[in-house]
Amino acid sequence: MTTATTLATPAMTPLPKLNVVPFVSVDDMMKLVLRVGVERFLTELAAVIEEDFRRWEMFEKCPRIPSHSEEGVIELMPTSDGTLYGFKYVNGHPKNMREGRQTVTAFGVLADVGNGYPMLLSEMTILTALRTAATSALVAKYLARPDARTMAIIGNGAQSEFQAIAFKAICGIDRLRLFDIDRDASEKCRRNLKGHGFEITICASAEEAVEGADIITTVTADKQCATILTDNMVGPGVHINAVGGDCPGKTELHRDILQRSDVFVEYPPQTRIEGEIQQMPADFPVREVWQVMAGRAPGRRSPGDITLFDSVGFAIEDFSALRYVRDKLAETGLFTELDLLADPDEPRDLYGMLLRCKAKL
Amino acid sequence: MTTATTLATPAMTPLPKLNVVPFVSVDDMMKLVLRVGVERFLTELAAVIEEDFRRWEMFEKCPRIPSHSEEGVIELMPTSDGTLYGFKYVNGHPKNMREGRQTVTAFGVLADVGNGYPMLLSEMTILTALRTAATSALVAKYLARPDARTMAIIGNGAQSEFQAIAFKAICGIDRLRLFDIDRDASEKCRRNLKGHGFEITICASAEEAVEGADIITTVTADKQCATILTDNMVGPGVHINAVGGDCPGKTELHRDILQRSDVFVEYPPQTRIEGEIQQMPADFPVREVWQVMAGRAPGRRSPGDITLFDSVGFAIEDFSALRYVRDKLAETGLFTELDLLADPDEPRDLYGMLLRCKAKL
Repeated sequence: MTTATTLATPAMTPLPKLNVVPFVSVDDMMKLVLRVGVERFLTELAAVIEEDFRRWEMFEKCPRIPSHSEEGVIELMPTSDGTLYGFKYVNGHPKNMREGRQTVTAFGVLADVGNGYPMLLSEMTILTALRTAATSALVAKYLARPDARTMAIIGNGAQSEFQAIAFKAICGIDRLRLFDIDRDASEKCRRNLKGHGFEITICASAEEAVEGADIITTVTADKQCATILTDNMVGPGVHINAVGGDCPGKTELHRDILQRSDVFVEYPPQTRIEGEIQQMPADFPVREVWQVMAGRAPGRRSPGDITLFDSVGFAIEDFSALRYVRDKLAETGLFTELDLLADPDEPRDLYGMLLRCKAKL
Repeated sequence: MTTATTLATPAMTPLPKLNVVPFVSVDDMMKLVLRVGVERFLTELAAVIEEDFRRWEMFEKCPRIPSHSEEGVIELMPTSDGTLYGFKYVNGHPKNMREGRQTVTAFGVLADVGNGYPMLLSEMTILTALRTAATSALVAKYLARPDARTMAIIGNGAQSEFQAIAFKAICGIDRLRLFDIDRDASEKCRRNLKGHGFEITICASAEEAVEGADIITTVTADKQCATILTDNMVGPGVHINAVGGDCPGKTELHRDILQRSDVFVEYPPQTRIEGEIQQMPADFPVREVWQVMAGRAPGRRSPGDITLFDSVGFAIEDFSALRYVRDKLAETGLFTELDLLADPDEPRDLYGMLLRCKAKL
C-alpha cells in the first residue's frame, strides 16, 4: 500500500455537495458591486467581455428566443464556449414602470458543459445594466475619437448612471449633457452621479443635449419606433451609442443617420431583427464589433467619421458577466447555497431518495 | 369620500414584495410529493397536462433549443399560453451516472406574461420524472387497450418507478415485468415499488420481459441508436410507450416496428428531430396526442392495433407541471422566498438602490 494508492481511494476525497448551486441574490449583487467598486467592476467586466469577444468564433450563437405579447417580451439568451454554457432570462415591459415595476428584469445561469450541471444562478437585473454599460464603453473605446470627453445621454432612466460611469472609467468621459422627457429623471441621474467627478448639464431638449457632444448615448424605453435623433442633430466625428432600440418595432434613430454612419453591431442575425438597422435593407453594410476588437476589421477610420454602435445586447455579454461574477464568489463569499439539484446517493435511484425523505419525516 | 374611494387608494393596499420569487427546492419538492401522495400527485398532474393538451392551439410552441456537446446536451424548453410563460432548463449526460451524478437534471420557471416577472422557480429533476410518467400514462389511457394490466419496463433507472406508479394510478396496471442490462437496477426498482400493490417479475432479457405484456415501456438512457425492441418482439394489440429515444442519434426501436404501428407524438417538428421517427422519412404519418385528447383524431381503432407513443417530452408538459406545483404552494407553504428581482423604490432608480444599499452597510 503506497501513499499514492491511499490518496487515490475515493473515500478519502470529500464529496462535493452535488445538489447545491451558488445563488447570487439582488442583495448579494449590490454588495458585490459596492465591495469591488462600481468603476472597477465595470472596467474588469469590460475586460472579460473584450476577452470573450476576441474569441467570438469559439461560441455557439443564435438570436435570442423571444416570446412576444402585447405588453412586452420575455426572452431566453443562451450561448456556450464549449466549456461553459450560459443563459439569461430577461423581460422587457415598458408599461411596468407605471406599475412600480422594472421595465427589464433578468436572471441567469452558468453551467458546466461537461456534465450539464448548473454552477451559478444569479440575479441579472443589476448585472444587465452593468454589462450593457460595460459593452457600450468598451465598444466606444474602439470607435469614439480618442479625445472624446463630452457625452450626451438621452433617456435618463434605470441604465443612465451605469452608462455614464462606464464611459468615465473606460473612455475618460467627464462631461455629461442629460435629457429626458421627464426632467425628474435627469435630476435623479445628476443626483446619483454626484461625487463621480462629472460636469453635468441638464438640457431642455435632445437638440440641446447633443450640442458639443463627442458621444451620443440614446437609452430610452418606449416599445415603438421613435425618432430620438434626427439627421441634422448629428455632426461629423460623433460616436453614437444607440442602446434603446432593441426590439422589433422599437428604434430610436432616423434612418438617414444610419446612411451617413459606419454601423457596428454585435451579432448581425439578431441586430437585423431588433436593432436600428431593422429599418434598413437586409444587406445594409455593418461591421461586427468582435472583428474590430480582434483586429480583423477597421474601427474608426478618420476623426470626421460618424460611428454608430447599434447595441441590442448579445448572449455572450451575459455569459462574460456570469463568468466574471462567478470568479468573484470564492473571495467575497457573497452567495447562498441553493438546493436546486436532486442528488440521490445512487444516481439511478431518484425514487429511493423520495422514500428515504419519507423515512426521515 | 365613499368607502369605495378609500379602498381604491393605493396606499391602503399592502404592497407585494416585488423582489421575491417563490422557490421550490429539491427538499420542498420531495415533501410536496409525499404530502400529496405520489399516486394522487401523478393523477392530478396528468389532469392538468390533459387540460393543457386540450387547449394545445392556445400555446406558443417551438422545438426545444439544444446546445449539444460530445458528452451530452443542455436544452431550454419555453412555451406560453398568453397568460403564463414557462421554461425548463434540462441537461442530458448519460456518462454522468458513472460519476455519481444524474443523467438528467432540470429546473424551471413560471412567469407572468403581462409583466414578465418570474412567479416560481422550481427544481425539476424530480418533477420531470413525474411529468414524463404522468404524460406517458395519460397518453396510454387513450391508446392502450382498456383491459391492459401487464406492463414491461425495459430500462429500470431513475424514471422507472415513476412510470410504474403513474400507470397504476391512471391505467390500472398492476403487473410489471422488469428488465435492465444491470440486474441491480431491476432489484432497486422492485424494492422501491414494494407496497404499491404490483406483482413484479424480474426478467433476464428484453424478450422475456415483453412476453404477455399489454404495454411496453422503453426507458433506457444511452445516447446512441440502440435496438431495445426488435420487430418480432411486438405482438398485436400492444401499446408501446417509448420514452428513452429523445435526442438526435438516440433511438430504442427497430424501424420495422414503426412501420407496423400507429405512431402518436407530442409536437411533430420536435419529434421528427429527436424521437424514434428520426429514423423515418420526413412525411412518415403520425397523429398528435393532443388531437386525440381533444376528440379531433382517433386513438386506438381496434384491439389488434399496435399503438406507439414516441415520447420525447414537450415544453407544455413542463408548463403544466409548474402550474400544478404553483397551485399547491399556498396550501402547503413548501417553498422559500428568493431575492431574485431588483425592486427599487422608484423603478427608474436602479442605481439609487445601489447607493441606498451602500448607505446601509
